[in-house]
Amino acid sequence: MLPPSWLHTWPLARWLQSYQRHDALGDLLAGLVVAVMLIPQGMAYAFLAGLPPQMGLYAALFPLILYALLGSSRSMAVGPVAIASLMTGEALRHSGTDPSQWPLVAAQLALLVGVCLLGLRLLNAASIVNFISHSVIKGFTSAAALVIALNQLKYLLDIDLPRGDFFTLITALPNALPQSAGDAVLLSLLCLGLLWGMQNQLAPQLIRLGWPKLAAQTLARSGPLVLILASLVLLPFLWPQAQLAKVGAIPAGLPDWQFIVLDLGQIQALFPSALLIALVGYLESISVATALASQKRERIAPRQELLALGIANLGAAFTQAYPVAGGFGRSMVNHNSGARTTLASLLAAGVLALVVAFFTPWFADLPKVVLGAIVVMAVLPLIDISAIWQTWAFNRADALTLLASFLGVLFLGVELGILLGISLSIALLLKRSAQPHIAELGRVPNSEHFRNVQRHQVQTLTQAVFLRVDENLYFANTHYIEDKILDAVSTRPQLTDVVLVCSAVNFIDASALESLETLIERLAQAKVRLHLAEVKGPVSDQLAHSHLLTLLQQHQGQIFLSCYSAFCALQK
Amino acid sequence: MLPPSWLHTWPLARWLQSYQRHDALGDLLAGLVVAVMLIPQGMAYAFLAGLPPQMGLYAALFPLILYALLGSSRSMAVGPVAIASLMTGEALRHSGTDPSQWPLVAAQLALLVGVCLLGLRLLNAASIVNFISHSVIKGFTSAAALVIALNQLKYLLDIDLPRGDFFTLITALPNALPQSAGDAVLLSLLCLGLLWGMQNQLAPQLIRLGWPKLAAQTLARSGPLVLILASLVLLPFLWPQAQLAKVGAIPAGLPDWQFIVLDLGQIQALFPSALLIALVGYLESISVATALASQKRERIAPRQELLALGIANLGAAFTQAYPVAGGFGRSMVNHNSGARTTLASLLAAGVLALVVAFFTPWFADLPKVVLGAIVVMAVLPLIDISAIWQTWAFNRADALTLLASFLGVLFLGVELGILLGISLSIALLLKRSAQPHIAELGRVPNSEHFRNVQRHQVQTLTQAVFLRVDENLYFANTHYIEDKILDAVSTRPQLTDVVLVCSAVNFIDASALESLETLIERLAQAKVRLHLAEVKGPVSDQLAHSHLLTLLQQHQGQIFLSCYSAFCALQK
Repeated sequence: MLPPSWLHTWPLARWLQSYQRHDALGDLLAGLVVAVMLIPQGMAYAFLAGLPPQMGLYAALFPLILYALLGSSRSMAVGPVAIASLMTGEALRHSGTDPSQWPLVAAQLALLVGVCLLGLRLLNAASIVNFISHSVIKGFTSAAALVIALNQLKYLLDIDLPRGDFFTLITALPNALPQSAGDAVLLSLLCLGLLWGMQNQLAPQLIRLGWPKLAAQTLARSGPLVLILASLVLLPFLWPQAQLAKVGAIPAGLPDWQFIVLDLGQIQALFPSALLIALVGYLESISVATALASQKRERIAPRQELLALGIANLGAAFTQAYPVAGGFGRSMVNHNSGARTTLASLLAAGVLALVVAFFTPWFADLPKVVLGAIVVMAVLPLIDISAIWQTWAFNRADALTLLASFLGVLFLGVELGILLGISLSIALLLKRSAQPHIAELGRVPNSEHFRNVQRHQVQTLTQAVFLRVDENLYFANTHYIEDKILDAVSTRPQLTDVVLVCSAVNFIDASALESLETLIERLAQAKVRLHLAEVKGPVSDQLAHSHLLTLLQQHQGQIFLSCYSAFCALQK
Repeated sequence: MLPPSWLHTWPLARWLQSYQRHDALGDLLAGLVVAVMLIPQGMAYAFLAGLPPQMGLYAALFPLILYALLGSSRSMAVGPVAIASLMTGEALRHSGTDPSQWPLVAAQLALLVGVCLLGLRLLNAASIVNFISHSVIKGFTSAAALVIALNQLKYLLDIDLPRGDFFTLITALPNALPQSAGDAVLLSLLCLGLLWGMQNQLAPQLIRLGWPKLAAQTLARSGPLVLILASLVLLPFLWPQAQLAKVGAIPAGLPDWQFIVLDLGQIQALFPSALLIALVGYLESISVATALASQKRERIAPRQELLALGIANLGAAFTQAYPVAGGFGRSMVNHNSGARTTLASLLAAGVLALVVAFFTPWFADLPKVVLGAIVVMAVLPLIDISAIWQTWAFNRADALTLLASFLGVLFLGVELGILLGISLSIALLLKRSAQPHIAELGRVPNSEHFRNVQRHQVQTLTQAVFLRVDENLYFANTHYIEDKILDAVSTRPQLTDVVLVCSAVNFIDASALESLETLIERLAQAKVRLHLAEVKGPVSDQLAHSHLLTLLQQHQGQIFLSCYSAFCALQK
């Protein structure tokens, strides 16, 4: 038996302590379903990254096992995912290396992604992903999904399209479209129709016919498998003369162990991409894991996830694969198919290992159209343009960020698009707090409450003004606040007292402190006293370490506990 | 007579309307004093930038006139300044051009600085300089002054030192010091002693002897002039055999008009430096102008300053000069010598024009030691290391920013140092707001007030917890706040209600809105209701545009006006 401390830090051991027979049934079914999904998705995502199809299968093998052994999510399926594949493809194109070198460069990238994730764990810096706001995520996910879908057009229409970003693709389309191959287009429509029908129509119909819900849903989700089996088994008989591009020979056998060496130049070239893939991959994984865990009222351990995903990426690097993450689609399927623990993933990896070891030659005749259709159906739900309008109504800064991330990913690429979105969201945040809302307060008659004079019927004093700054006082807004206070003073000749209401001030920095000190002196020259009211505990602790209090006293300024006590004192 | 709208926008015309005889006397004296200061400083700052001495004189000529005609500060003296000269020198060294080309490149840089300033005016973006916090300014000013002083060692000791940054200078010192020339060292000590004595000791002594204060102070400030006259007139007689490096021949005559052409490559290379020189120059100018204006209870118009400084820099570019700004030292002298309007600057420019046109050959025999000593005495007061300790006591983030800016300027150069400081100040600000202070509140007995349970003796409820988040709710802190609330719930099994007190929340972004929606649903699964209290006007306007209110109602959550009404309702 393991010591208790191990159980605390090793999720799988904890789960297995209370493992029961019906858990095993759930894991078994989920494992099989995921294995079946992994085969076409793995190959398709490897194509998306510009890599040979077996690398997508390898990426689902050891990384899946390593995550299953270490991860804190019971049902997340780690492996090749759409957005990380797109980003890997972008990094490979920008690496300046020959495409024949890309399999090796992709593994180097996976190594650096793993190192970044483990580095974030060491630095306890998982929270850095919180700076990627929901608006940035929505914008870049929609755009990335659109680019991924466009990338599939070359398979769906059997046309020559360069591998690349949105701009490359749409400028090449007008010339390429007329070359569309009729057979491919026909099969594409059939595949998309079949997938759409099974995904959206089959389950309700089967349930109406009396099938058990789980069985109906499982069958409905097996669309990709049905499609692959049908196109491998039936297509040659039903449509032998079809002219279709095939996946081609895939080497059989498990991946070889490979040792990765990186020189300093390669590290410098790949590191920015690796860091961004690590952050985006971690963000996607933790979102999926948290969503699944909260359905079972469990919690995810972010540090454990960084460890598990980091090791999974190192595993990818050393087994001829490329960067991996926790995918949304397969994880949902795994969860809904009844996965109770990561044993489901271990089983999926086992099935996949058998396929990779012995049966890859079977897939040589698979039309590429089928893979393209599977990817398109997987990413279409991620495209959500309407989010811009919904966000606009609530907060324009968020809508601008979303739009900038979306257009940035389309026209500058995933990496620059995300960086643009992050920079813009931070810039807009700073801009807002640099020009804070300042309310003039008055007393709600016969009460101790003070409210904005523009929103409420309140009492004011002619010789004193109560100003509430709705923001922390810090370097970017000190000048603005100073100006507003001086403006208020210059427009009211009878004024002798200004009360700065600090109920919304959680923090004062050194710039703001100096600005307050200057303000006290400038107001004193105009025979106006500055007072503070409703200073919070942490802020007054801070002020105790400064000269402000002495300076206030020198100029007959006071610190009032509440607006009401200031009102009473100044009324006299 | 000018139409009134002109008077409003053209400061000089406004001042001249009420111009009187004693104004003219003040302007006359101040203009003469500033002209006298400009000669040695102009030459010395040009040397600092790695440019021929006449460029420093030219930089004080047309830019001074243009600012005098357009500026909104009565007494600011625009021209060559220490830090902009240091930054120009850095930009020239990094431009990759041959030193013989530097006079032209410096003029190109001035053109771009002018364009940046006018661009900031067009974009109404003067407030961007507010993001350079006081801590960054203090750190980089101290470090820049230190580098400037070290740069003068080659003149003070007559040694061979490479032109360059702190690291270059201190690594070259050990080899160079033993070559110090005895005559130069002796003269340096004499010059520094004379300057120090006149600056700090002369005025009090003269006043004690019965001199009028203004006359005593004016004489005390004429140290540089006395030093120059003495070394030109007396030195050849008193110490004819002294071996000293001389300024050398300076071409006589006013600067030629030159046309500046920039190709795209040069613009790209120089633009980052130009923007930073523009920002730092504007920041220095506006600080000086504001400080001087507030002594006379006047205001500075930031937009007018951007225009005036922009045009002054364009003037510098077209008249063989280099980037200019409003300098602290000369402006103080101008102000204290009695300048009433910018006519003082016009007079100073006139005197300087005479000197430049006819008398520059007189300065060929001026020892470089004298210029070095004048610069050292001008920048020494800017070095303030103790600011780090003072800031540390108040706010560690500011102290770290100050230290980083200081060390950054020393070891990475002025540009990177400032950028490092700005980035760090923003990063630390975001880090702080990403992990906000969250206080649990209780009721102050027999009152409507609620205070932190850890700081006060207050009443609490077992079934409800009042949490006040002391920060805006936005993307970087949503996860943290979510976690803290879920932690509070998971540790208190009797809890049925969570009240989020929003008195310090001035703003909710889209990420936080989604996080709140998720939180309501997660808490509902745990049979806990979420309520809001003390929501401010602007925030409740915002929430009216969202689904949050509907969702709250669905899960029996309420919005309470105050903590007290929530307390009364939940007590039952």
